[in-house]
Amino acid sequence: MDNERLSKQIKFIVEIDKLKQILRQNVVIGTTRNENDAEHSWHLAVMAILLSEYASDKNIDILHVIKMVLIHDLVEIDAGDTFCYDEKGHLDKKEREQKAADRLFNILPSDQAEEIMALWREFEEMETSEARFAACLDRIQPLILNYNTKGHTWQKPGVTSEKVFKRNDPLRENAPELWEFAKEIIEDSIRKGYLRK
Amino acid sequence: MDNERLSKQIKFIVEIDKLKQILRQNVVIGTTRNENDAEHSWHLAVMAILLSEYASDKNIDILHVIKMVLIHDLVEIDAGDTFCYDEKGHLDKKEREQKAADRLFNILPSDQAEEIMALWREFEEMETSEARFAACLDRIQPLILNYNTKGHTWQKPGVTSEKVFKRNDPLRENAPELWEFAKEIIEDSIRKGYLRK
Repeated sequence: MDNERLSKQIKFIVEIDKLKQILRQNVVIGTTRNENDAEHSWHLAVMAILLSEYASDKNIDILHVIKMVLIHDLVEIDAGDTFCYDEKGHLDKKEREQKAADRLFNILPSDQAEEIMALWREFEEMETSEARFAACLDRIQPLILNYNTKGHTWQKPGVTSEKVFKRNDPLRENAPELWEFAKEIIEDSIRKGYLRK
Repeated sequence: MDNERLSKQIKFIVEIDKLKQILRQNVVIGTTRNENDAEHSWHLAVMAILLSEYASDKNIDILHVIKMVLIHDLVEIDAGDTFCYDEKGHLDKKEREQKAADRLFNILPSDQAEEIMALWREFEEMETSEARFAACLDRIQPLILNYNTKGHTWQKPGVTSEKVFKRNDPLRENAPELWEFAKEIIEDSIRKGYLRK
């Protein structure tokens, strides 16, 4: 291809196809198959459209939230999925993911590499309203899937309701109605035996 | 849940998890596993971010394009995936998909049901710049996957280069640089034996 810019963009589009092979801990509802990162990212993006009215910040930029959730897990192509309740895995997570970001995003033309890098950093730092709301979506989506698969992931060793409550804490301030909903389904999950107290 | 509105939204979010089980004709690069609609929709949304500079209409609303590609295949939860080169399957496609849209989107609160219905109709009618660019993405993504899987889907009965050119025709007017790229890889695919002339 003559067009060097387009050639880099296509190379990146081919490379990120690998996200469809990065498996998460939870399963797809009604199946025993693990969800992958591409499916998860799609689900978050649709949720961003439907649930943005619950963000505490009523001036939230929804396009920005969607861009962040679409690209937030790309680094896992190299770094793998780190289970959110795996304390050991988190020790070197930051370093592994930064290395992945450097390799992956720099396949793109430099202006777009910078844009995607900035979006990913913003998501990770959780300091803007958009990043905080994106984090809320990233918490509540697996909660919904786990509730609808009899607590599939919560049966793993070391997971307790205390940890699940803590994990979902960003909802409390950044999306209070979603926090009320999350509390209800966590409590119902304990009652139903999906989750250890 | 007390909050009736949120309850409908969550019900829809659970329902559309099924999109992850709707298989397409093409496979994920480097695997023999069929891609599903959720993965495909995610890929289109990321491509919308990266490739919008190639849309003929330079004032395109990118958020609108992204929303359309994220929801464009939801009707296939009920109607199934109709192979783009299956002429028989297309006879009742419209009717099957309208029925699916009526059931699925009306799970949502009425204002959001209307929004998603309007987005889906706009995508299907291909009359706005945004819908036409969304259609371009929906053409070029499987083209890229097929090229990178030695023409996996193109090996099926009845597929010829003429049909693939015709399928990608929306690119010609709505994204000329992407059309040039598509032509190159279709021609290269013929040379390599991935696609019958």
